[in-house]
Amino acid sequence: MMQAWKTLARRLVWDQSDFLRLEIHTVELPDGRVISDWPWVVAPDYVNVVALTEEGRFLCFRQTKYGVEGESLAPVGGYLEPGEDPLSAARRELLEETGYQAPDWTGLGQFRVDGNRGLGQAYFFLAQGARCVAEPEADDLEEQELLLLTRQETDAALQAGEFKLVPWAAIMALALLRLKD
Amino acid sequence: MMQAWKTLARRLVWDQSDFLRLEIHTVELPDGRVISDWPWVVAPDYVNVVALTEEGRFLCFRQTKYGVEGESLAPVGGYLEPGEDPLSAARRELLEETGYQAPDWTGLGQFRVDGNRGLGQAYFFLAQGARCVAEPEADDLEEQELLLLTRQETDAALQAGEFKLVPWAAIMALALLRLKD
Repeated sequence: MMQAWKTLARRLVWDQSDFLRLEIHTVELPDGRVISDWPWVVAPDYVNVVALTEEGRFLCFRQTKYGVEGESLAPVGGYLEPGEDPLSAARRELLEETGYQAPDWTGLGQFRVDGNRGLGQAYFFLAQGARCVAEPEADDLEEQELLLLTRQETDAALQAGEFKLVPWAAIMALALLRLKD
Repeated sequence: MMQAWKTLARRLVWDQSDFLRLEIHTVELPDGRVISDWPWVVAPDYVNVVALTEEGRFLCFRQTKYGVEGESLAPVGGYLEPGEDPLSAARRELLEETGYQAPDWTGLGQFRVDGNRGLGQAYFFLAQGARCVAEPEADDLEEQELLLLTRQETDAALQAGEFKLVPWAAIMALALLRLKD
C-alpha cells in the first residue's frame, strides 16, 4: 500500500466564497520531507450530463466559455448547489438547460479536476430516453445554442477536438465508449 | 457568431511563479454587463500520453496524488517545461517516467482544464509501438509503480473509475475510442 501525503497545515490566502478559495498547504511526504508552500484551490463540484433523446440524438450546446478560444460544443453541466447530491444536480441542469427530462440514468464516474491543485470533483452521468417537457430556463451567463446531434456527428466532433474542455472531452468519450459496449 | 467575453483588466493577487498564479479579472459580457471579480488561475500546461508497447500493452502507473483519495491508475504525464512544445514534452515524459520510446505518435487533442477558472491546457497523445530503451528516471514526488495492462484490463479499469482524475479518464477514453475505429 502506497502512503498518502499528509496535510500538516492549511492557510487560506484568498477567499471568494462559493467560487474559489486559494489555500497554501504544508504537506509531509512519506519520506519525511516537508513542503511548506503547496498551492491548493477549492472550487465547487460540478456535474456533466450526456443526454440522449428517445430518438438517440445527443443533446449538446454550441457555446462560448470565458476560458475557451472561440466556440465549443458542450454537454449539459453546471455546479452543484450547496448540499445538493450529484444526481439531483444532473437532473436539474438537464431540465433547466434543455427542458428535457430522462427516465434512465447511468453514472459514468466521479473524478478530481486537478491532481495537484485540487479544485472540485466532476460527476459524470449518461441520461437516456430524454423527452422535451418544458422550455429551457438557463441562467448561465454564456450564450448557448441547443443542438441535437447524431451519434456519428458527436463522435466526429469529439475526434476533431470540438469539445474544447478536458471534462467535456472526458464525458463525451466515456459515454461513447459505454454506448459501444 | 457568438461573442466572446472581453477582459478589461487583470490584477495579480497571488504569485507562486511557475506553479500557480491567481488573477482577478474585470470582464465585459456581450450585453454590456461588467463582472469585476472573476477569479482566473494560471497554471502550467501539461501533457498526458497513452503509450502502447509493441505487444499492445498499455503503460500505466499505479500511484498516489495529493489531490486523489487512495491509489489511482494513471497514464504517463507531466508539466511542459518553459518553451517546450507539447510533443517534445510527451516524448520526454514517456522516456523519463517509463524508460520507453515510441516511433508512432498521434495527437488526441488540446483541451482547456477549466472553462471558468482557466488553469492550463492539457495536450493528449497516443504513442504506439513503444519499446524499453532505458531505466526510468522519474523525479516525481509521488510514488508510482509501472504496469503493463492489456486493453481489456485498461477498459475495465477505466469503466470502474480507477483512473481518478478528469484528464486521465479523458485521455484513456479518447485513446480507447480511437483504437476501436
